[in-house]
Amino acid sequence: MSVDGKISTYERVQVRISGDEDFRRVDELKCNVDAIMVGVGTILADDPSLTVKSGRCKNPVRVVADSRARTPLDAQILHKGEGKRVILVSENAPLERINALSEYAEIIIAGSTRVDLRAGLRELKRQGIDRVMVEGGGTLNWSLIKEGLVDEIHTYIGGVVIGGRNAPTLVDGDGFSKNEGFPIFDLIDVRRIGDGVLLRWRAKKV
Amino acid sequence: MSVDGKISTYERVQVRISGDEDFRRVDELKCNVDAIMVGVGTILADDPSLTVKSGRCKNPVRVVADSRARTPLDAQILHKGEGKRVILVSENAPLERINALSEYAEIIIAGSTRVDLRAGLRELKRQGIDRVMVEGGGTLNWSLIKEGLVDEIHTYIGGVVIGGRNAPTLVDGDGFSKNEGFPIFDLIDVRRIGDGVLLRWRAKKV
Repeated sequence: MSVDGKISTYERVQVRISGDEDFRRVDELKCNVDAIMVGVGTILADDPSLTVKSGRCKNPVRVVADSRARTPLDAQILHKGEGKRVILVSENAPLERINALSEYAEIIIAGSTRVDLRAGLRELKRQGIDRVMVEGGGTLNWSLIKEGLVDEIHTYIGGVVIGGRNAPTLVDGDGFSKNEGFPIFDLIDVRRIGDGVLLRWRAKKV
Repeated sequence: MSVDGKISTYERVQVRISGDEDFRRVDELKCNVDAIMVGVGTILADDPSLTVKSGRCKNPVRVVADSRARTPLDAQILHKGEGKRVILVSENAPLERINALSEYAEIIIAGSTRVDLRAGLRELKRQGIDRVMVEGGGTLNWSLIKEGLVDEIHTYIGGVVIGGRNAPTLVDGDGFSKNEGFPIFDLIDVRRIGDGVLLRWRAKKV
């Protein structure tokens, strides 16, 4: 994220926040997980392939949280590179979209109007997927944190200021209210990488 | 700010993000500046006094950027503690408000509809104020950074997640667009304090 906690501009245009050294770190991280997950907003805004760029390992299973099955049929994630794709949808997703997408990905239906992430992750776990790396965006991050499903948060902060009250941040959604309290994370590692810093936080056990 | 770059909840309720050690650091910082400045949004949301809590030095000059002179007459900043107050207003501010506030603070009129921060800071400088510490909020931070008036950004990041697409962040306002480019800051210091980390950034000379 930027100095001020943004992950893209208010127009949802991606910004190069980190450098090659950090890109390599993220690429290596992908080799140590069973799956990598993003929300459909990230697919629609950035169209990432989520492949391992170095080719040092197989691509992890690629997962999209996509309540209404809006992932485009020509999305890069469905076509680029080898490996399994999974789309988590809700019962609310149009059947014709599910059918079309199921040509390229396994479809897991969980939740009535929005994806039930806990149930979805449980199904992934049943399939042997233990470690999931989430690459955002802010809405999926929010849903996962709200449900208490996040063990660690790794944020690379680079020296760019993006600004904007409407720019996507690391954790968007409704946000927590003072009344309900906030999830607390312990700072487990601080490491300078390139021109920025990597912070690793671990969910405090309650 | 929080792990995710927020400075309060979506309801604009203040959250305790740092601990005593960091409060002392900020208090000491106040002793090394000539003035401390906030935007009127922060006055209206938090009603801070901005005094030096330790009493180890005199209060710096307290400055509010307040285009329409909305600072309440009973605001703590106008009444608590010794020292000079300055309110920067625009020509757009109602004259009766200016008159009422001038009983408690020096009024500097700069800019037609919004405060011209560059002109306001120039006038402060003329009065001998060289070092200004800004305590937000996100709208004032945005205006200052946009104008290229910020030399350093110090962010303490604590282990709380606040979330919320509408929660105030470190830098709000309109935000920068990819077309115009982004201000770049160099990371000059990383220091763990309490349960979080203090990052210090310095504006890259162009």
